[in-house]
Amino acid sequence: MAETGSARRITPVILSGGSGTRLWPLSRPDRPKQFIALAGEESLLRQTAGRVGDPALFAPAIVVAGQDQAVLIEQSLAGLAVPPALLILEPCPRNTAPAIALAALCSGEDDLLLVLPSDHVIADEAAFRAAIESALPCAAEDWLVTFGAAPERPETGYGYIRRGEPLDRGVFRADAFVEKPDRPTAEAWLAEGGYDWNAGIFLFRAAACLRALEEYAPDVLAAARGALAGQRRDGIRLHPDAAAFGSAPAQPIDVAVMERSRRVAVVPVAMGWSDVGSWDALYALGELDGRANAVSGDVVAADSRGCLIRSDGPEIVAVGVEDLIIVATADAVLVVPRGESQRVKEALAERRRDRT
Amino acid sequence: MAETGSARRITPVILSGGSGTRLWPLSRPDRPKQFIALAGEESLLRQTAGRVGDPALFAPAIVVAGQDQAVLIEQSLAGLAVPPALLILEPCPRNTAPAIALAALCSGEDDLLLVLPSDHVIADEAAFRAAIESALPCAAEDWLVTFGAAPERPETGYGYIRRGEPLDRGVFRADAFVEKPDRPTAEAWLAEGGYDWNAGIFLFRAAACLRALEEYAPDVLAAARGALAGQRRDGIRLHPDAAAFGSAPAQPIDVAVMERSRRVAVVPVAMGWSDVGSWDALYALGELDGRANAVSGDVVAADSRGCLIRSDGPEIVAVGVEDLIIVATADAVLVVPRGESQRVKEALAERRRDRT
Repeated sequence: MAETGSARRITPVILSGGSGTRLWPLSRPDRPKQFIALAGEESLLRQTAGRVGDPALFAPAIVVAGQDQAVLIEQSLAGLAVPPALLILEPCPRNTAPAIALAALCSGEDDLLLVLPSDHVIADEAAFRAAIESALPCAAEDWLVTFGAAPERPETGYGYIRRGEPLDRGVFRADAFVEKPDRPTAEAWLAEGGYDWNAGIFLFRAAACLRALEEYAPDVLAAARGALAGQRRDGIRLHPDAAAFGSAPAQPIDVAVMERSRRVAVVPVAMGWSDVGSWDALYALGELDGRANAVSGDVVAADSRGCLIRSDGPEIVAVGVEDLIIVATADAVLVVPRGESQRVKEALAERRRDRT
Repeated sequence: MAETGSARRITPVILSGGSGTRLWPLSRPDRPKQFIALAGEESLLRQTAGRVGDPALFAPAIVVAGQDQAVLIEQSLAGLAVPPALLILEPCPRNTAPAIALAALCSGEDDLLLVLPSDHVIADEAAFRAAIESALPCAAEDWLVTFGAAPERPETGYGYIRRGEPLDRGVFRADAFVEKPDRPTAEAWLAEGGYDWNAGIFLFRAAACLRALEEYAPDVLAAARGALAGQRRDGIRLHPDAAAFGSAPAQPIDVAVMERSRRVAVVPVAMGWSDVGSWDALYALGELDGRANAVSGDVVAADSRGCLIRSDGPEIVAVGVEDLIIVATADAVLVVPRGESQRVKEALAERRRDRT
């Protein structure tokens, strides 16, 4: 589709890394959560692509994914009105900075890149879009713009961004990126205001990103350049050179660039954002029945309250239980109290140790 | 095998009726619990047959089962040292009195019949055998002997037998059969003594049984006679005539005969008996780990206490839960608090209503 008028369109860069097991047994190393219809009828990846699919504002996307995910990606995005322009397949996981470097190097210098994790939920898409539009002038002036999700609770599981001085309508200088706080700190920040959740969403000119990488993470940029010099193409699939890409340090873009650059802005936005990082996070998103149960699939919840009960296979019958997470697939069942779903990861790790 | 000496051997009559769903999702209408290895490596039916398999004391068994169960019975009992002599296949369920009438009519008048449910657990087989031997003299004198399991708790789910005067060493006249008591009554009986659980196990001469049926339940006996007059045989399988058998009233032997006859004896016996009538009953039988969990199958129970967790298929991971029953098969999962497993039946009944 040709660009229309003088407005530059934004190229979404969708990051499909990760192989978490925090939503086990639904997510598995070979089927990370972006490929699962966790919230709604479509996979999180497809929802993400759909969210940036309006051709009036967005150019076709670049997807950066693990090389094992090519088929999953293409299946998950099949039939989209605007299919991705490029699928960059990482030979090994190196976190987000090398992935973004690849995408920026594959773009025109003037292209505006909107970097998006593929496995988050954004309930209020209009608010998200308005935030992007607020960010455009600063991004055009070579600010690295981040989006700060309005905190809804004193969450200790996310990083935060502290707002500095206002730069433009709805845009602030990002004063600091701060790591996951303890509970009293998170409560103080929530009361004080001026702190937003780091949602891992960024908008910048490709040239500004590359310049920042050159300055703050030159080894990341060099590895990405080498990986593209040795690339192999196959339709929209791009295979970077494995040895060169493997030499990149595994760094998140936040650490490699955002925390170091002084030209970083934040657009706070209340958009119903969640990283769906646990079953508890999914419960917080779910539609609840009259007994505060979030139920999906072939489930009978008799006289049960406050439960997340989900089946992607067998029938689940729960009788008289409260505040439990119960998840079943064809080959596995999880039962954990609500509020404790972060313990699943550790139990699975112990199990793996026991079995090896 | 020929009988040895003058001691008459006992013919076990194993009753494989019922199609309960109290142990759903393991037990199903087409796979009642006697066919499941609920407690140990073998099915309850095979354990029952093994318990009366010593040829020094027992003749080959008569099994009375639903006609749909023929293959399950034969598979479950395959390879026993002493295979059953006869498999009577009921055309329709009519409770225990007609089933026992069929078995008695197929036996010699002088045969001693030991009637046994196929789906109970008896932990102390030596005590059981000693009780049978205590019962033999009275049975030979045409008493209808029952076995009263020593009560281990003020159970409200079982019927009780009240002991009367002593008849012989370890044998008492059965004063009354009393229905499931309420909790205070059960507690009073336990404190008072002299009340035993009605385990549904009986020993009598075939002739004594038939005479009692003639006197107290002539319609049961007439229907059984008619059903055998029209029988069809196929190896050890005996198919009674369906119309004649269907005309029998559906009555338990307790109601039809035992509660009415004045020549009923009871042998109290502490034998670790359970009817395994619920998941809670199975938990009470199970070997517990150091955290009071009864776990079987592919299960990880991390930081969990007091749970029955059983998988006959998928992996179950339970983290941080207490006092739950969690059971999974290939196509279904049950979660219910321990102590409330009797509610499962009602939840399943509601589900069936909802779906029709």
